[in-house]
Amino acid sequence: MNPSGQRGLGKAAVDGDDPWEECLEVAVQLALQAGQIIRKALTEEKQVSTKTSAVDLVTETDHLVENLIVSALKEKFPSHRFIAEEATAAGSKCILNDSPTWIIDPVDGTCNFVHRFPTVAVSIGFAVNQELEFGVIYHCIEERLYTGRRGQGSYCNGKRLQVSKVTDITKSLILTEIGPKRDPDTLKVFLSNMERLLKAQAHGVRVIGSATLALCHLASGAADAYYQFGLHCWDLAAATVIIREAGGVVIDTSGGPLDLMSCRVIAAGTQEMASFIAQEIQTIHYGRDDDN
Amino acid sequence: MNPSGQRGLGKAAVDGDDPWEECLEVAVQLALQAGQIIRKALTEEKQVSTKTSAVDLVTETDHLVENLIVSALKEKFPSHRFIAEEATAAGSKCILNDSPTWIIDPVDGTCNFVHRFPTVAVSIGFAVNQELEFGVIYHCIEERLYTGRRGQGSYCNGKRLQVSKVTDITKSLILTEIGPKRDPDTLKVFLSNMERLLKAQAHGVRVIGSATLALCHLASGAADAYYQFGLHCWDLAAATVIIREAGGVVIDTSGGPLDLMSCRVIAAGTQEMASFIAQEIQTIHYGRDDDN
Repeated sequence: MNPSGQRGLGKAAVDGDDPWEECLEVAVQLALQAGQIIRKALTEEKQVSTKTSAVDLVTETDHLVENLIVSALKEKFPSHRFIAEEATAAGSKCILNDSPTWIIDPVDGTCNFVHRFPTVAVSIGFAVNQELEFGVIYHCIEERLYTGRRGQGSYCNGKRLQVSKVTDITKSLILTEIGPKRDPDTLKVFLSNMERLLKAQAHGVRVIGSATLALCHLASGAADAYYQFGLHCWDLAAATVIIREAGGVVIDTSGGPLDLMSCRVIAAGTQEMASFIAQEIQTIHYGRDDDN
Repeated sequence: MNPSGQRGLGKAAVDGDDPWEECLEVAVQLALQAGQIIRKALTEEKQVSTKTSAVDLVTETDHLVENLIVSALKEKFPSHRFIAEEATAAGSKCILNDSPTWIIDPVDGTCNFVHRFPTVAVSIGFAVNQELEFGVIYHCIEERLYTGRRGQGSYCNGKRLQVSKVTDITKSLILTEIGPKRDPDTLKVFLSNMERLLKAQAHGVRVIGSATLALCHLASGAADAYYQFGLHCWDLAAATVIIREAGGVVIDTSGGPLDLMSCRVIAAGTQEMASFIAQEIQTIHYGRDDDN
């Protein structure tokens, strides 16, 4: 399989007049390369550290993969800016201005990775003038490459993605993630949100441990809505393009427009599903990514 | 890939003195065949009905695959008995006696299947004298074939499985499923069980929508414990052999021995993890499979 060769390209890309086409191609190659490293590392012993809480994990592989991606991109595109998970954890500012900016999660699903639970991805988003231009997410274990290019659709291994058209909660499958904060108040709201959706007779709620891959399931129509508090811009950037280009909706949990730095999101196949979720769930307060 | 050819075989099987070897080989072939049908059906429109509740779903494919498996086995092994999900839903008695008995879930993860969420399996277990002899579980989408033969180990696509050795909840990844009952009292206990494990600082809880595949993750060491109320003997039979042969523990939620018909289970890599979960969680009452 050669996922990069199978990526569907829109007219602009084919005509060669897409200014960010080269960036996207480089992102795809780096995601595949990173995926190879992560696949290999999955089977090896790991040195695990913690970040914001006892369950917010990081490994050498997160650092290694982030350095690989960022250093390759810096060499190729020296004027570009970078927002990356581990650099931010180490104190780098997380600010999106008008410059071409790469937004990177080297290993999404680090807890899964630590446990060898095979749901782990690389996520590379790219924004210019604060607008998301493309996203690349690579499911390292199942070798599924998701790409979305603004105005040109989104694809998984060459197959065009299309969100579900479900508008009714009683016909829906919902995805969420627990988030790193585990104090009693946070857990109470997390569980009560799940309870509300189950009482509203959603078919089910799934928690797979990778926000980016859950969002890719949404883009492919395999689920009808996703919501989460406590995720970050690097979990959202690439996936947002992929979902929107698959016909989906990505908004703030208040029901308003998405704020990439607000650490919260609702994504859905339809506006009706997104609005229903926004009305049902209660807010869990996390800080902003650009407050650090 | 030829998963059946890659299955590891123990000494007895190689020597040809395993009385159930032919049954296991037939089960593998039928699981692969069923998987092909399910993979194809996943992309097609589905007629969905409900069973015990509005979220307990069944499709034509569940019936089609069950009929295919059971009729092929009946022809080959006319004296054997059968416990299968859809026949039981249609009123067949679900009783395990000393006869050679096949215990079959044609499509585990029917809700996932309906939503095209790619976590769906076929599960075929086999018991003689009320003892589980072997189990075959096939992840239809990722083409992973799990097999376990009593006394001969368990394998995924030819690779020997080994459970995790984690004994400490604060280093664990836990799997569970929601179950079909969604009345307020059931939901409260389901969520409070999850809350207890998260408060005990489990790294995370995952809900993937297929009990058999969650149990296969446990067998492969990708998670440290699984618990559920409201699953059935056809979700448990094959997986129990696979987990035990991978070195794991499968017990009742009370902490006592597994009762295949009791609709509840704890499985873990270690006795310590299983006992911890048994102490923490509260019971959700479901009927017994053999009460129907």
